[in-house]
Amino acid sequence: MTTDPIFEFIESKEDRFLEELFELLRIPSISTDDEHAEQVQQAAHWLAAHLESIGIADVAVHPTDGHPIVYARHCHAGDDAPTLLIYGHYDVQPPDPLDEWKSPPFEPQVRDGKIFARGATDDKGQFFAHVKGLEAWLATAGELPVNVKILLEGEEEIGSKHLGDWVRDHSDELACDAVIISDSSMFAPGIPSITYSLRGLAYLEMTVHGPSHDLHSGLYGGAVPNPINELTRIIAQLHDDDGRVTIPGFYDDVRELQPDERQAIAELPFDEQDFVDETGVAELKGEDGYSTLERIWARPTLDCNGIWGGFTGDGAKTVLPATAHAKFSCRLVADQDPDDIAQRAQQWVEELADDAVRVETRMFHGGQPVLMDRDGPQVQAACRALEQVWDHEVVFTRGGGTIPVVSVFSQLLDVPTVLIGFGLEDDRLHSPNEKFNLENFYAGIRTSARLWEQLAR
Amino acid sequence: MTTDPIFEFIESKEDRFLEELFELLRIPSISTDDEHAEQVQQAAHWLAAHLESIGIADVAVHPTDGHPIVYARHCHAGDDAPTLLIYGHYDVQPPDPLDEWKSPPFEPQVRDGKIFARGATDDKGQFFAHVKGLEAWLATAGELPVNVKILLEGEEEIGSKHLGDWVRDHSDELACDAVIISDSSMFAPGIPSITYSLRGLAYLEMTVHGPSHDLHSGLYGGAVPNPINELTRIIAQLHDDDGRVTIPGFYDDVRELQPDERQAIAELPFDEQDFVDETGVAELKGEDGYSTLERIWARPTLDCNGIWGGFTGDGAKTVLPATAHAKFSCRLVADQDPDDIAQRAQQWVEELADDAVRVETRMFHGGQPVLMDRDGPQVQAACRALEQVWDHEVVFTRGGGTIPVVSVFSQLLDVPTVLIGFGLEDDRLHSPNEKFNLENFYAGIRTSARLWEQLAR
Repeated sequence: MTTDPIFEFIESKEDRFLEELFELLRIPSISTDDEHAEQVQQAAHWLAAHLESIGIADVAVHPTDGHPIVYARHCHAGDDAPTLLIYGHYDVQPPDPLDEWKSPPFEPQVRDGKIFARGATDDKGQFFAHVKGLEAWLATAGELPVNVKILLEGEEEIGSKHLGDWVRDHSDELACDAVIISDSSMFAPGIPSITYSLRGLAYLEMTVHGPSHDLHSGLYGGAVPNPINELTRIIAQLHDDDGRVTIPGFYDDVRELQPDERQAIAELPFDEQDFVDETGVAELKGEDGYSTLERIWARPTLDCNGIWGGFTGDGAKTVLPATAHAKFSCRLVADQDPDDIAQRAQQWVEELADDAVRVETRMFHGGQPVLMDRDGPQVQAACRALEQVWDHEVVFTRGGGTIPVVSVFSQLLDVPTVLIGFGLEDDRLHSPNEKFNLENFYAGIRTSARLWEQLAR
Repeated sequence: MTTDPIFEFIESKEDRFLEELFELLRIPSISTDDEHAEQVQQAAHWLAAHLESIGIADVAVHPTDGHPIVYARHCHAGDDAPTLLIYGHYDVQPPDPLDEWKSPPFEPQVRDGKIFARGATDDKGQFFAHVKGLEAWLATAGELPVNVKILLEGEEEIGSKHLGDWVRDHSDELACDAVIISDSSMFAPGIPSITYSLRGLAYLEMTVHGPSHDLHSGLYGGAVPNPINELTRIIAQLHDDDGRVTIPGFYDDVRELQPDERQAIAELPFDEQDFVDETGVAELKGEDGYSTLERIWARPTLDCNGIWGGFTGDGAKTVLPATAHAKFSCRLVADQDPDDIAQRAQQWVEELADDAVRVETRMFHGGQPVLMDRDGPQVQAACRALEQVWDHEVVFTRGGGTIPVVSVFSQLLDVPTVLIGFGLEDDRLHSPNEKFNLENFYAGIRTSARLWEQLAR
């Protein structure tokens, strides 16, 4: 079986595929807004019906305490064939500010070779490419070459609130060899990319307690510890002069970049000046000895995310406040453990604090870093599929952020996740005028079709 | 002329004096609340009428763009006699929270030898003691032994907004040898006190600019400067390990404590443990080499009064904010200059900032430190008057805060201010159940009567 008839099928059906995606994009399945709960439901049912219509077996809409999960199981390829779990999310971000859209967010429109609509790239257009890739196989070969399970979530934009519980409750049913997710971007236009690492997260809040009540800085200033000043002394000591985090043991479990990884990263077409312009900073700043991409992708960091205390209104008030607060978080890399790092941070903060004050810390839910084996069979199959379609060598990227669902699958199913992005950096996800390039949609479908073939080998 | 008949007069009129003070206290002259503007006016006119009724000459109510100033000029003692300007304020703080008052704030009541009412000690009761001291002279001797000008303000609790302009416009008219103010506390019950120094103030706000817009800490964290972290590094460097302020030249103009002052301060009945208990701090903290009272009264300090930036709500948001802000102020001592210190602070902050960020500073209106000559004739006269009435040696105290009106008089009239407090530390000014001890009211009247006598010598 070659995929030539499959590619012919895809090419001949492009217009219908686009019209079907438009139907899905027209449903304002905004999960963040209770007023749209019915439309989120509507999107789930539309998808279930659509999956059935193309021949996917065992499709059902599963209620959760929030928005439903669409789940299908199409495992007819036999025990020897690999089983893949395809994940996507059919909910979208709110479209605000509405008046910045050039065409209405839920009336998809193609302009200049791009599909403009809320959800076009995040994530309706991307996962729908896989749906169409599966359809192409079913329509032309009559069956899929692999076993497929499809899980479409309606709560990704609200933190996948109920996904973890559902996956845990159905972990036997969800057993698979790998998870396939297309909900990210290519490194650059025309450069097919696989993200093989994501940073984890440890998040803490600290409160420095000084006096038992706010004091007048004239009557007490100079004789009692000021919680704001003490807080800044603690935070300032969390990095050394080389930009390294000072928490004892912080780097103990860090898996260092391999020489080939560093070389691959160095060879990527990354323009530092573009990065400076994009962020608007005067200068870049980070850990000594690492490039910008290495700092973002492969090094653990510590950033304050919020700070507050005392008088923050207009004008001059001479208060010496009772407390001062900060939120800070560490981005983690394999094989750091969020709980371990949070505990070390907590101890270190208490150690750094002056005896004259009391520090209270609070840990938030963190996220595990993820590092996939670039040589794993599913990743290699994805590489071959991508290279055949895009006619360009795959680049391996790492992600600086955390994708919670990847941690969910990694922890609960104990299988690798292959992150194949069809989007582009300029797709404006979460912003007005979100778009998905038409060519990326079609190439995504072809990539998906090739992927099942390659995975079956 | 001895003051014996005067003291007899005072003793015989105590009940009437108290009833008159009650009349004044019944007027809710809350300057902070526009709804009470009419009652502030009412208090001004009540006072003008009252001053006239006891024989004070040239009394007038002067409108300002805010609440009026009551001004009287009674200068019949001749050119050789000294001229004193008596300052007081007839406006009061709001009484909230109302339900914590044991008796209504504007229905004065004596319980347990204490007058309970809003304004009892701050400042109606205290300046009224001087009014009654003047009345005692006029009623018994027929004339005052000194020339007196009386200035009663209605905006002290809202920052004396229009006082400066009015004093500037009337500086010739207000010419005098010294200003007398009773709007403070005694060091301890039974210990007559004169405050001879007040700290000044330099107040700044700084903003640290990092990226041009808020960034996601996952996608950018570790590669760009974080304004919160950078802000904390700046603030943390504003003190050295000895608790001294690091701003270059900060201490250049500081007039050091004299050995006799240090000894006098050391001999004051000050309990450090009481201070710890009162403030609720774990430990005291300040500049090495100075006692707690010296740190508050006679040393310049730097305190952050407010800090804010990034995400300060509930939960965990991984923002890397565009800006972070702090307000900080220096308490100053003679002969530091607020503008000079603010400029030095501004330069230093910019110097401490990392090149990767941009710092913007803003200076607020400051306050001059004040240091009166303890050996000046008016201060010495006040000492004699106090010691005769209270039968206890006067202690010289310094104030850690700024009293703006003292700076106004010091700068615009270029005369010393004698701060004679009749209040007590537990008078709860600005709080519910404000009180003024009856004995302090009467002793204040006797002190006032003695004061005019001693000043005339």
